[in-house]
Amino acid sequence: MEETALHAELRALVGQDCVLPGTSPEYLADATEAQGLRGRADAICLPRSAQEVMSVLSWCYDHDVPLIPRGGGTGYAGGAVPLDGGVVLGLERLTRVRSFDPALWRIHVEAGVRTADLRRLVREHGLLFPPDPGAAESSQIGGNVATNAGGPHAFKYGVTGAWVTGVEVVVPPGDLLVIGGAIRKDAAGYDLKSLLIGSEGTLGIITAVWLRLVPAPEAALPVVAVYESARAGCGAVEQVLAHGIEAAALEYLDGGTLAAAGSSFAGGLSEGADFMVIAEADGSAADAARIRDDLIDVLGQDALSVIAPTERAEVRALWRWRDGVSIAVTTNRGGKMSEDIVVPVDRLAEAIEGTIEIGRRLGLPACSWGHAGDGNLHSTFLLSPGDEDELARASAAAAELFALATSLGGSISGEHGLGCVKNGQLALQWPARAVELHTQIKELFDPKGLLNPGKKVAL
Amino acid sequence: MEETALHAELRALVGQDCVLPGTSPEYLADATEAQGLRGRADAICLPRSAQEVMSVLSWCYDHDVPLIPRGGGTGYAGGAVPLDGGVVLGLERLTRVRSFDPALWRIHVEAGVRTADLRRLVREHGLLFPPDPGAAESSQIGGNVATNAGGPHAFKYGVTGAWVTGVEVVVPPGDLLVIGGAIRKDAAGYDLKSLLIGSEGTLGIITAVWLRLVPAPEAALPVVAVYESARAGCGAVEQVLAHGIEAAALEYLDGGTLAAAGSSFAGGLSEGADFMVIAEADGSAADAARIRDDLIDVLGQDALSVIAPTERAEVRALWRWRDGVSIAVTTNRGGKMSEDIVVPVDRLAEAIEGTIEIGRRLGLPACSWGHAGDGNLHSTFLLSPGDEDELARASAAAAELFALATSLGGSISGEHGLGCVKNGQLALQWPARAVELHTQIKELFDPKGLLNPGKKVAL
Repeated sequence: MEETALHAELRALVGQDCVLPGTSPEYLADATEAQGLRGRADAICLPRSAQEVMSVLSWCYDHDVPLIPRGGGTGYAGGAVPLDGGVVLGLERLTRVRSFDPALWRIHVEAGVRTADLRRLVREHGLLFPPDPGAAESSQIGGNVATNAGGPHAFKYGVTGAWVTGVEVVVPPGDLLVIGGAIRKDAAGYDLKSLLIGSEGTLGIITAVWLRLVPAPEAALPVVAVYESARAGCGAVEQVLAHGIEAAALEYLDGGTLAAAGSSFAGGLSEGADFMVIAEADGSAADAARIRDDLIDVLGQDALSVIAPTERAEVRALWRWRDGVSIAVTTNRGGKMSEDIVVPVDRLAEAIEGTIEIGRRLGLPACSWGHAGDGNLHSTFLLSPGDEDELARASAAAAELFALATSLGGSISGEHGLGCVKNGQLALQWPARAVELHTQIKELFDPKGLLNPGKKVAL
Repeated sequence: MEETALHAELRALVGQDCVLPGTSPEYLADATEAQGLRGRADAICLPRSAQEVMSVLSWCYDHDVPLIPRGGGTGYAGGAVPLDGGVVLGLERLTRVRSFDPALWRIHVEAGVRTADLRRLVREHGLLFPPDPGAAESSQIGGNVATNAGGPHAFKYGVTGAWVTGVEVVVPPGDLLVIGGAIRKDAAGYDLKSLLIGSEGTLGIITAVWLRLVPAPEAALPVVAVYESARAGCGAVEQVLAHGIEAAALEYLDGGTLAAAGSSFAGGLSEGADFMVIAEADGSAADAARIRDDLIDVLGQDALSVIAPTERAEVRALWRWRDGVSIAVTTNRGGKMSEDIVVPVDRLAEAIEGTIEIGRRLGLPACSWGHAGDGNLHSTFLLSPGDEDELARASAAAAELFALATSLGGSISGEHGLGCVKNGQLALQWPARAVELHTQIKELFDPKGLLNPGKKVAL
């Protein structure tokens, strides 16, 4: 279809001001732009309601036009990038809080509400929405659910999906479905809700979610320890578990990451520091203090130094610094390829060392950081933007990394999903029949293959 | 196929002593026997390994023989009952603990391990496997996962599925798949793991699971309050939430349930008691004591009386009594039909009163108890065994109950699943396209329809 005709059709569905030119640059890339990924669209459509999403999907399905749903565009897998035209459907105008019942620990919000806004809103009422993915100020809750986003506090609280009690979703050829709702249990049908969570917009477009909440912990106290090696630091992480200490978060940064980001660390780094563990104790004031003391004891055993800030401003500064690590590493050479592999926690040191070894072999500076308690690494290869040779070597490095993760009994993705950057890799971790079921499920939901095409492709 | 030929074929696959006559009575019913459900099988097969399960499934699939997987047979939905012949495949001999890493908070066990044995084993190492379904001494972990079983502590800790990091499963036509494993995150493929959890043996046969664990709480202290009405008791439950008190369990028993089970309650019941709330505070000793005090305050406000036992023996006796409620109610008239509907917690009182009203209209004594914090009722109609007229009225009552649950924004099942007793009811809560997807997913996994036929049928 000619582009002006397409725009006219979309405008008839959602109004003049909800359709932008396909060339609008902010809708053509996500956080993978640092490795050179940028797409092409025929139109950008910004509906204001689930009903409008349904109209657009119906029309696109009738006219064989691909549809690429988009949240905050903070993904690291190219999941929101339009690869070959079609309509980018941004959920950013679906920002209503449909209902919020603080006294019942639940909220029902539209997909476009920003994660950080949601967290602040419930916090004002003494409640916690625990998932805290890295880009919470920009990411949207719909995108978080569609990718099943994680974050540091997933160690204690689980990933985004653990907090979703219902989804409202538009599926081809144009049905608006509600699965679950304001209920905390549901054993009736097959778990379509979980199937949609993390499906990266390839099975349906999430327009609203029902979330459960918990009372916010009274206190959250971090403990930071540095070590002379990854082995020593990973050993300390295992000791936290072995001592039965329930940390809320259990993060790490390796030597290369400290080299890139450590100079802005407020606590200062000990001489010889080549690994950092950041743990957090939360709960009632008494419990958080007790867990913090336990963490200081156990993390301190083989550490070069331990700090445990208690001032609110210091604690905030620490987590702000932690959130900024990814950007600090990117700044190092201007670009990076970062992959979110997962391994059993007792294989973490091997995965961290393996990342560096792969980089060394392929001539790329490498480092990693991430969620130690969950065995979830952000294994990263540094790039100079636009250097095609480095990019090719980074792709080869990523392939080796995926093979390493699965050989250790892990997964090629813990947080980012497959997007388009991990297409064809699922067979590394799943047997043929499981891969076949993955592909067949896609065909069930989206027989024409128009929903976020080229994403989460198994083979 | 002739029965002796079938037995010979199965014996060739799994050995002489692993095949029993189809008439073996203990494999033909589950906990729905109290409402008259008993099936018919051609053979009972008790394999000793996942490989043998795979052989049996492959052979059955080749020869068009239905296969009915069976755990502990404690289900309340007829899910394990062979409705019309075929091979009952009991998982009871798959009882190996394949690996247990207490220092890493995880265990890998075969499907036939009994839930209570699993809980005791990890408890000996200071860890908790939180799910505590009612019949834990008889139920098996594979069956718990296949039905996504709940229990009182699901309020704080979530249902069984929340603790499963991986499943080993045999799917038609005879593939042994591992989805997940000893990993705490996985965002790679569509969530096949969750699709299998709660699929009631209709998509695959779970042969082993990987579970995560948490450090066991130092203390668990119950608080029991009785009220003069369901409205008063449900109001108290909502007040617990409104005060931000994180109870580990928040249970209730209505007046009819107290009439049936209350005489054996160790604490004695106040005059006029027509509703009971049982809450539990857990955590560190200090935290549990603080939460217990808060519960006593808030639950006590409109209560007739409050007791809060602290002696270990008293606490155990209380939960043993709570576990026995279902049997006490059954004993009342010899039989019952009990349905596990779910509603938003603020609609709990309406569902409790509605249950009694439906029973009154259809001339059946009715009561309910269950998991108040999760809005999950066991709505029960009492029956005289063998009375066909009462059974017919109970079925009509159940249908009204399902309509009530969905009209309140809830689900027809929170714990038991659809089994065969709720076939055809899913359309009450799901739109047509979701029901269609449910059916199509079944066809994808099991194109011949041989896996637990007649169960979890949407239409």
